[in-house]
Formats: sequence, C-alpha cells, structure tokens
Amino acid sequence: MIRITLLGSGNVAQHLIKAFTKSETIEIVQVYSRKKENLASLIDFDKIVNDFEELKEADLYIIAVSDKAIAEVSRQLPFQNRIVVHTSGAASLDVLDVKNRKGVFYPLQTFSKSKEIDFSTVPMCLEAENTFDFKVLETAAKSISNVVHAINSDQRKALHVAAVFVNNFTNHLYQIGHEICEEHQVPFEILKPLIQETAEKINTLDPIYAQTGPAKRNDSTTIDVHLDYLSNENQKNIYKILTQSIQNNGKKL
Amino acid sequence: MIRITLLGSGNVAQHLIKAFTKSETIEIVQVYSRKKENLASLIDFDKIVNDFEELKEADLYIIAVSDKAIAEVSRQLPFQNRIVVHTSGAASLDVLDVKNRKGVFYPLQTFSKSKEIDFSTVPMCLEAENTFDFKVLETAAKSISNVVHAINSDQRKALHVAAVFVNNFTNHLYQIGHEICEEHQVPFEILKPLIQETAEKINTLDPIYAQTGPAKRNDSTTIDVHLDYLSNENQKNIYKILTQSIQNNGKKL
Repeated sequence: MIRITLLGSGNVAQHLIKAFTKSETIEIVQVYSRKKENLASLIDFDKIVNDFEELKEADLYIIAVSDKAIAEVSRQLPFQNRIVVHTSGAASLDVLDVKNRKGVFYPLQTFSKSKEIDFSTVPMCLEAENTFDFKVLETAAKSISNVVHAINSDQRKALHVAAVFVNNFTNHLYQIGHEICEEHQVPFEILKPLIQETAEKINTLDPIYAQTGPAKRNDSTTIDVHLDYLSNENQKNIYKILTQSIQNNGKKL
Repeated sequence: MIRITLLGSGNVAQHLIKAFTKSETIEIVQVYSRKKENLASLIDFDKIVNDFEELKEADLYIIAVSDKAIAEVSRQLPFQNRIVVHTSGAASLDVLDVKNRKGVFYPLQTFSKSKEIDFSTVPMCLEAENTFDFKVLETAAKSISNVVHAINSDQRKALHVAAVFVNNFTNHLYQIGHEICEEHQVPFEILKPLIQETAEKINTLDPIYAQTGPAKRNDSTTIDVHLDYLSNENQKNIYKILTQSIQNNGKKL
C-alpha cells in the first residue's frame, strides 16, 4: 500500500484523484487545495486541507499545479527528505525544492474537465533521483496505468514539444477544418470519420508512410486550386508552409 | 438490385469493389482495368476488361481513377445517356464528358492498400444532375455506408480543402512528432494514446473548445523553451506559425 498526498485541484489533480481512488494499492492520505470546495465531490471533505501545516506523513507527495506554481508549492512544504514529485511535461526536475527527494510523475495525456479518461492506457513518464524512489513512483504509476516509462528530463522535454505538435497543433488544424466547413455550409460531422482514421492509421503505419494528399503527390494543380479557394490569409499561409514541409519530407524517403 | 461497373484499379476502386461485393443489393457487372492482373484477387477474372468496347450495359458507371485521368476515361466510354460518376473530392462535375449523365460518388475517407476500412462509417458525398440519378447514387451509397450526404460542387471543394488540413497536414504533424522523438531517443509509441484522444475529443467537443497548450494559455515561457529546444528550422517555423494562429484564434472566443 502506497500512501499518497496530492497537491492541486486542477484537471490533472482531479483525474489523478479519481484514478487513485479506484486503485486498491493506493491510499490517498490528503489533498491540498486552496479552495476546499473544488474537490468536495471527489473525496472525503476531511481529507482536504488548505494549510501546508496540516499535511500528514505520506510515502509520496504529488504536486499537480500549473508549471509556474510548482516551485513555490514545493518550497512551502513543511518537511524534508520525503519523495515530492511534479506532474509537468515542461518543468525540469530542478524546479522542486532541494529539501525533499525530487521526482516527476508525468501522465502524457490531454485532460478535459468534461471528458472521462481511461487511465489504464495513459503513458506514465517517471523520473527520480535514485532507484528506491523510482520504485515507489513505478508502483504508484502501475496501480493506475499499464504503460509506464522511465523518462529523463531531456527526453521529457522532447515528448512535451512533440506533444504540442501532435495534440495542440493537430487540434488547431481540426479547428481550421471546422472554419472552412462553416464558411461553406457543410457539416463538420462529415470530416470526423476521416479524422479518426488518420489518427488510427499511425497505429499500424509510421506517419511518413501514411502520408497522402496533393503535397505528397506533388500535385501542383490541386494545390493551386486549394490556395485559390482559401479566402483567409492565415489559412493560406499555413497551407503553403505545411505543403512545402511535406514536399521536403518526401525527399527524405 | 443496382448493376454497377467500376473503372479503375487503384486504392479507391479496390475498396469499392470489396464493399460492393459484400452488399446484397449491388451487382458488379464489370471492372475496367488496364492491367487485369491488378484485380485478379478481388473479382472473377472474366468480369475484368481492359478494352472500353467490351463494357456491357449497367445502371451506374463509377470512374475511380486519378483526377488527371477522369476526363479521358469518361471521353472514351463508347455509350451515352447513362449515369457516369467520378469518386474525386477535388474534380468538378464538369470534367466528365457531357455525352453521359454526370455525377459524383465521393467517399470521404483516406484509403491505404494495407489497411481495411469499415465502409459503413465512411461519409458518401453525392451529387447528380437530376433527382432520378441522385436516387440511384443514393441507393448504391446506402448499400455500403450508413452516412450519405447530398453535397454540391462548391461544398465538396470546401470538404476537400478541409480534409487536407485535418488529414494530410495532421499526419505531417504526427511525422514531426515522430522526428522529434527519434532525435531524442524516445519511443514515438508514448505519444499514440495522446494522438487517439486528441482525435476522439472532437466527437464531443468543438475543436475551438478542445484547444489546450502553451499557445492557448499564452504561456510565453514554455513557447520560448520549446523554440529554443527545436534544432530544425522548418519545425521551428511551423511551431511559430501555428502558435500565432492559435493565439489569434483565442481572440475570437
């Protein structure tokens, strides 16, 4: 049994509380939240604290707050030499105060308040300063997910940048598709199976081999028709740059 | 029973042959292919022809060839006043020869040779010159798919451009994510659940509301760290332009 205290009340904190609550090998000791009400529906109210001095002993403290607040929260902890980790893909191990044993417990997934997550498939990217601490993180991670990786700080940075491309930027392309549909009175619905299939395809095919379309075919007639059709300068610019990038990529094959 | 003849032997033609073969309301009369061997595994060899003069009467002729070849194939058909459609998202109705009744039978999906498609969820975008012809296309489309839409040429163009963004360009972003992982010795596998979840999210949330990440949060610290981390000028440039576009988008909300 690992005894865990969570610090934070945002998306990641809430999803972790839900996941750990379901696990039989984890006991949530306490959750720290400045506003206790935020978590009232998720956990016994008497386990929620809003004063660092009230924190009890635990095997693992997970700081799930915004990147900017990690350092300050870790500094305020009124104890030392315990395992204290953050959940951020972007923050380095060193933002955590040196008085405790530092680590990272990064669930690589996009969390929304309004959508449940199957945590068992969420890759958990772990980092610790020594083998014992890593084992604690690993046991905690395996209690909620089947996918656990040791990822050092440089690798985590790479994953975080790559995640911006495949998640944030991809979603923005969906948004542009949505805008084009709206402008021409076509239901965006029609594109959804294509979007799902595009994402699914890379489970069996490396993206470079899954590439299709006018840019890949060097079909300049269609590219010109599309650029002519787009009325929005920003969309035109993105179309040109990504087309060029695909064409340059083709030369690598 | 609708009697269909297909012209072409590429990806779309092959997936349509498979789908129609399973349908009880469709009879495939013939398939035209310059090289008969290409289709030998899909259909009775004596139904494959490579001479336009051998084409028998059918209710519907579906030209599933590359955009450039549609006009020429439709011109070579040795009959008139029959329903002849193409399957292209990019080509206009008017590339088809006027001697026959023109139409479009556009399955909006990405087809690979190596991956099976569940045709029942593929949106079929149909266009015809009159109600009778449309009904024929509709019956044929409904025999293989549950999602059938009347889409005129302008709308189809919009869908095709939008599809380039959500499919071709999105896949290219996956490819960039793959490159970043490779460069830093992280398995791309770790990003796959995120990619699936990003695509799934828009089934319940409009993309503009699903947007997350440093650009959306105007988190200039993380954006600078990422730009600094990227060593490839092309990746840097794409990062900048999509970040800016997300930030401008934010102003619309």
